Amino acid sequence: MFYTTPLADMRFVLEEVAGFGEIAQLPGYEAASPDLVEAILGEAGKLAETMLAPLNQPADRTGSILENGVVRTPQGFREAYGRYVEGGWNGLAFEPEYGGQGLPLALATPVAEMWNSACMSFALCPLLNAGAVELLQAHGSTEQKQLYLGKLVSGEWTGTMNLTESQAGSDLGALRSRAVPAGDHYRITGQKIFITYGDHDLAPNIVHMVLARTPDAPAGSRGISLFLVPKFLPDGEGAPGPRNEVRTLSLEHKLGIHASPTCVLSYEDAIGWRIGEENRGLECMFTMMNNARLNVGVQGLAIAERAYQQACEFARVRVQGHPIGAAPGAEALPIIHHPDVRRMLLWMRAAIEAMRALAYYAAALIDRARRDPDAKKRDEAQRRAELLIPVIKAWCTDLAVAVASTGIQVHGGMGYVEETGAAQHLRDARIGPIYEGTNGIQANDLVGRKLSRDHGAAAGALIEDMQNTVAAMERSRSASLASITGALRDGIAALAAATGYVAEAEATQAAAASVPYLTLLGTVSAGWLMAREAIAAEGRLATNRQDTAFFAAKLVTARFYAEHFLALAPGYVPGITGGGTVLEFDIRQF
Amino acid sequence: MFYTTPLADMRFVLEEVAGFGEIAQLPGYEAASPDLVEAILGEAGKLAETMLAPLNQPADRTGSILENGVVRTPQGFREAYGRYVEGGWNGLAFEPEYGGQGLPLALATPVAEMWNSACMSFALCPLLNAGAVELLQAHGSTEQKQLYLGKLVSGEWTGTMNLTESQAGSDLGALRSRAVPAGDHYRITGQKIFITYGDHDLAPNIVHMVLARTPDAPAGSRGISLFLVPKFLPDGEGAPGPRNEVRTLSLEHKLGIHASPTCVLSYEDAIGWRIGEENRGLECMFTMMNNARLNVGVQGLAIAERAYQQACEFARVRVQGHPIGAAPGAEALPIIHHPDVRRMLLWMRAAIEAMRALAYYAAALIDRARRDPDAKKRDEAQRRAELLIPVIKAWCTDLAVAVASTGIQVHGGMGYVEETGAAQHLRDARIGPIYEGTNGIQANDLVGRKLSRDHGAAAGALIEDMQNTVAAMERSRSASLASITGALRDGIAALAAATGYVAEAEATQAAAASVPYLTLLGTVSAGWLMAREAIAAEGRLATNRQDTAFFAAKLVTARFYAEHFLALAPGYVPGITGGGTVLEFDIRQF
Repeated sequence: MFYTTPLADMRFVLEEVAGFGEIAQLPGYEAASPDLVEAILGEAGKLAETMLAPLNQPADRTGSILENGVVRTPQGFREAYGRYVEGGWNGLAFEPEYGGQGLPLALATPVAEMWNSACMSFALCPLLNAGAVELLQAHGSTEQKQLYLGKLVSGEWTGTMNLTESQAGSDLGALRSRAVPAGDHYRITGQKIFITYGDHDLAPNIVHMVLARTPDAPAGSRGISLFLVPKFLPDGEGAPGPRNEVRTLSLEHKLGIHASPTCVLSYEDAIGWRIGEENRGLECMFTMMNNARLNVGVQGLAIAERAYQQACEFARVRVQGHPIGAAPGAEALPIIHHPDVRRMLLWMRAAIEAMRALAYYAAALIDRARRDPDAKKRDEAQRRAELLIPVIKAWCTDLAVAVASTGIQVHGGMGYVEETGAAQHLRDARIGPIYEGTNGIQANDLVGRKLSRDHGAAAGALIEDMQNTVAAMERSRSASLASITGALRDGIAALAAATGYVAEAEATQAAAASVPYLTLLGTVSAGWLMAREAIAAEGRLATNRQDTAFFAAKLVTARFYAEHFLALAPGYVPGITGGGTVLEFDIRQF
Repeated sequence: MFYTTPLADMRFVLEEVAGFGEIAQLPGYEAASPDLVEAILGEAGKLAETMLAPLNQPADRTGSILENGVVRTPQGFREAYGRYVEGGWNGLAFEPEYGGQGLPLALATPVAEMWNSACMSFALCPLLNAGAVELLQAHGSTEQKQLYLGKLVSGEWTGTMNLTESQAGSDLGALRSRAVPAGDHYRITGQKIFITYGDHDLAPNIVHMVLARTPDAPAGSRGISLFLVPKFLPDGEGAPGPRNEVRTLSLEHKLGIHASPTCVLSYEDAIGWRIGEENRGLECMFTMMNNARLNVGVQGLAIAERAYQQACEFARVRVQGHPIGAAPGAEALPIIHHPDVRRMLLWMRAAIEAMRALAYYAAALIDRARRDPDAKKRDEAQRRAELLIPVIKAWCTDLAVAVASTGIQVHGGMGYVEETGAAQHLRDARIGPIYEGTNGIQANDLVGRKLSRDHGAAAGALIEDMQNTVAAMERSRSASLASITGALRDGIAALAAATGYVAEAEATQAAAASVPYLTLLGTVSAGWLMAREAIAAEGRLATNRQDTAFFAAKLVTARFYAEHFLALAPGYVPGITGGGTVLEFDIRQF
């Protein structure tokens, strides 16, 4: 149950895929010097390994509990959170104006990966807080910012997102919580469910971002406003004052992430302040969705990495049987020597490297979209990031479930026993495809908004870049890249065909095809980045004498990815272009 | 959390895929008249729906518990087991000589599906007992049979399988339990783990089948013998007498199947009797493996069916959002109207129908192998069954995990909350790929034994039958079958190429390719049977005026399977023929 930060892998992806060298040159990111980056990755890794990772399994066992109306997090969480805040980790990528360090998201992303690998249940608290920070930054009044933003950026207080109600999940338009004007503020009444860290004992105050309806609001999604509702009302000096009327009714009993308290919150005439304009609450929410969805994709990557490390460790120490072809009477060996165990581990590893490439690449796109001096490049980066974000959220979380499940399989019977800890990763990973917009919602966003709004132009530009990579690979005539080149070429062709179909398809058919299309886009995009990693690894092998085993392994992993993931790409096409089949099935026959 | 026996689907597969009409004509199966078959399916379904299905979720919550050395099953299990035994359900397919009904396995298989859909944790007790019955039937002495077989066939007593020890899981050759001769019996000493229903309160006696070593046995798997060790030693009249020296040390805390007690058993000079010859214990075990592995595949099918029914029910009642293209102001509708929810449900359904086709087909093969008057046909059926059994065990259990996970996804956030019951199916399903030989072991059996022993002859004969089906489909020029025909043709070509590669590959490479190859064989075999279902459904539609919606749905489901499952078949080939990639990855880099 150890966790070892995969620093070499992270650095490789930052350099070769995310183009961190360029990112650090962008105006505003000059502070991200190589020394600082090394220090940050190293220190964060240490904290993740020594402070958070050991909490993960015990915290799963006890869970967060509700006692006399108060939520208590598992032993060790308070101290860990204190050290996390003291170390200034919460503000890494936030704007310096309110105390953030203003560092690139491409740097904050591997750091977030570390927290989530070490203890996803813990890392959820800052993840939700980040959403609140972004909302306030973008839409808060000057006064709201002065009162709350510094404390949320530092992590002294934490923020939550209150969207869901029992009748309003994916369809927020159905929500009923009310907000009645009362002078300079509002009185909020309603019940919210699935509120992550809706209450806890890590911080002296909690700032809830709450969606609710004002009295004369129109029905549906156009009548929703956003409110800030603190657990304790700040006094004149900004310290937590009187208790507000928000109560925790219960905690959900979930399949996983037991240590993360998922609250049912009841608001009864609670005092709140509107953020942004009336009836524009959902639009406000969109400003934070890109980062939050990227972060959930990173959680998938992170939990997969942890499951992989645990499976490797088990495979190295579990002695069982003889490898095929061993001499009679040979000693039994650890199962890592069995071909199929090696296949499972390499499958997990290839999936993780593909996820990491996609996630860091997208983080760098967001950095470029913010800071590139060239407006056209900013725009291109923004559009590509928006195209890829739902893919990363959904593809990485789906894959994380499969990776965690494979981690159990490596353990055999021991994987099914909770003591081992392998099963926890599957239980924890399973939330990823659900929250922050289900993966079906992501696919609908991809097909219904991201593809249709520009008639596939952003996707077309991405495909063109991929084709350029293939052309360069073909020119290089590298033998070690040959099978990757072929698989990537076929994958891109499949993606291009499917994109054409989906961009032009009737809306219902496109929706029926959306998830397989997202899977295809994720598979091929990651395959493209894995190919770029292979090219880089080949280059390093040609010039370096150091770390040759590391770079050789990158080449083999990329080839494995091409054979086991990319090779499936053409096979997704009939399920996309045959979207009509779904609609032909008479729903009364289900 | 209801369960409705899918009788129409079961009958359709029995008739059109398993060829039940022919099976019922085989000598010895004449009793399986259409009336009796209907009565059995109907009665078993009722019992499953009304007695077992309601136990499933409460039993998961309480689990079986160990108190003062005694295992107590959840509330309701004792009564249910009593009714199960009284109804004569346990002996359905066992030989009449010892009280069985001698009915075809093709009939017992849908019945087993029902028990497992209704409550898999409960159904595990008879599943393990069946293994003990088969061992005794095949290898027990006349005296042993007289004393135990009747009681195990009726289910009055239950049997267990004691194979695993902490250092001996997949590698049974490493087991250390000792058996010292003592007159007409042996004294058994050792510790066994993962013993399903190793103790319980459902029956007055438990008969353990225990693998152990005699004092002078050779090392490894050739020095293992099989022993019968009853919990209570039968007295002169066969009633449970003195307690034997076998104790339950603990129950495992598992991810799922909480109601099934998984015991650590300690034997200390326990009295036991050898079954079969000394040092031939593992060979004895092979006699029961085909049925046990088929049954675990059926569990996969069964749990998938339950997860599917629950997802359908949720999708029918959960109102959320408007279907794409709904008029403004239209009423919100249940999510079953959303295209992507329909895709998920149809994906689950197609997977289930494919699993059911394979499982019932294999059961019928075993019936033919037992009863066909033609020795050549018996032999062919036996070889095909042996080829397909590891595929069914592994492919169905892998797919069941994916189906149960999709079931959670249909529920959205509610799926992650344990109260809903959707998560339990994933937790329960996850054991399937592990026990009764991990799926990696199945794949090794497929490639290392079943393919290599006849140089792919049985696989070749299966492929030929598939090609004949495609040829007939091509001749029919049916428009509604066209896309299925194409996908099946390509899938068979991929399977043929991969089979050629694997049958000739060096052993380590074949092992590295074995799981992807198994997936390919499962996908295409089931695709072939789905195509036969489509042909049958088309035929029925041409002649029937009844149930046209049912048959039309079968056609659409088969097409969906072709587009979403079969279409992936060619994409598995590079992962198989590139088996060497796994072996090139330096294991120190994991």
